[in-house]
Amino acid sequence: MSQKIISPKVTLVGAGPGDIELITLKGIKAIEQADVILYDALVNEALLEYAPNAKKIFVGKRRGYKAYSQEEINHLIVENALNYGHVVRLKGGDSFVFGRGFEELAYVELFNIPSEIVPGISSSIAVPALANIPVTHRNLSQSFHVISATLSDGSLHPDFESLSQLNGTVVVLMGLSKLREIAQIYEKNGRGNTPFAVISNGTLPNQKTVTGTSENIFDLAVKHKIQSPAVIVIGEVVSLSNQTYQSIHFYQNFLN
Amino acid sequence: MSQKIISPKVTLVGAGPGDIELITLKGIKAIEQADVILYDALVNEALLEYAPNAKKIFVGKRRGYKAYSQEEINHLIVENALNYGHVVRLKGGDSFVFGRGFEELAYVELFNIPSEIVPGISSSIAVPALANIPVTHRNLSQSFHVISATLSDGSLHPDFESLSQLNGTVVVLMGLSKLREIAQIYEKNGRGNTPFAVISNGTLPNQKTVTGTSENIFDLAVKHKIQSPAVIVIGEVVSLSNQTYQSIHFYQNFLN
Repeated sequence: MSQKIISPKVTLVGAGPGDIELITLKGIKAIEQADVILYDALVNEALLEYAPNAKKIFVGKRRGYKAYSQEEINHLIVENALNYGHVVRLKGGDSFVFGRGFEELAYVELFNIPSEIVPGISSSIAVPALANIPVTHRNLSQSFHVISATLSDGSLHPDFESLSQLNGTVVVLMGLSKLREIAQIYEKNGRGNTPFAVISNGTLPNQKTVTGTSENIFDLAVKHKIQSPAVIVIGEVVSLSNQTYQSIHFYQNFLN
Repeated sequence: MSQKIISPKVTLVGAGPGDIELITLKGIKAIEQADVILYDALVNEALLEYAPNAKKIFVGKRRGYKAYSQEEINHLIVENALNYGHVVRLKGGDSFVFGRGFEELAYVELFNIPSEIVPGISSSIAVPALANIPVTHRNLSQSFHVISATLSDGSLHPDFESLSQLNGTVVVLMGLSKLREIAQIYEKNGRGNTPFAVISNGTLPNQKTVTGTSENIFDLAVKHKIQSPAVIVIGEVVSLSNQTYQSIHFYQNFLN
């Protein structure tokens, strides 16, 4: 009997923001060629159907409970690559946007296992876009700032204070539980009329968007029962989402 | 003879950063179903082969010369949708990241033409990633800031001053001609040792990366003949690109 020769390889694939067709062609090809797939909670599980014969291991959080520590995930990736060949590490969004993808690849390199990076569509840009909010817009926003609401110790990210004083769009990931505190920073800094949007389940059929200002967004999010995962968008571009071409151009000319 | 019924539709598709396989599955499907494709200079033209029978119109800049004004592009989109049906507007990267995609869709809406948005992989995240630089990394960078180097009047974006004082990663698009000025802001603010990377032709076979600090990056980019299109990355994450797992973990523990 012939024995399969194992060629270990790890491909880090960004699965995109949720919609199954928002993965790249390169990502699909990697999944099709996978011997093993390790996937997270925010990955659309329908993507696993591209690899009917691969071994699938869920390594995400469920009901707030982590199945594996980061160290265990690192070991699982290497162990599976050495034993089965091509491991696809499938993460929601893009693996390098708060995804710890780099740490995993650095560990894989210790074992001289070849690796590849396949970027994914990041929720930070695509979720606002599909809620009709462009993160940049001529004359309104020439920059955008993507931030996790908390530092690793759970405290509010200190940069909100500075960001609330810039003109660019602020996109907050994993921030719903800090929405009230973030909005209060804007109010405190005299920017109580800053447009806010909260988008849950972005790009999916159950996507839900609530828009308001720093003064009322927390109450509106509670009222509309917005739940995680949610993306918060802050800045003038939020007000574009409900406007017509005429009013947008009036607004632009007004700003010029 | 039967006559084809025209159903006007416009799909705004992000083509990704250059690599032909870094377009989404949804983007490819839109191209395959296009009657007309309007595409920009930074789009990989190999993508047009997915639509052998579609009419293709190049509307980008060549040698600094614009074939069409933004207003003319808006008209072309609508005119082609009304006359031929499904227009795919194909832009480099993501259409909502300095892409004026929103303006075009707003114009299309005036004519009650249905439209759809297909996000693309943005160079702002993917180009650093494929140069081995994660825009975020636990303990090093819990935010990233994407900025165009200049405002629409050609002056340097005023927010570099504030951004140079935050800890997050700064990603500058369309900024090569302002590299010297940007680096000088960091030096002036006592951050002369901040790591800088300049990546040209990111994700393509001719990708070129130069890394240094705010003190020497301009000279290095000149020396290595870096040309546009280029992405500038600023911040501690740049120093990860050449490090091993051990040194990364040493560095992290050092910071903790």
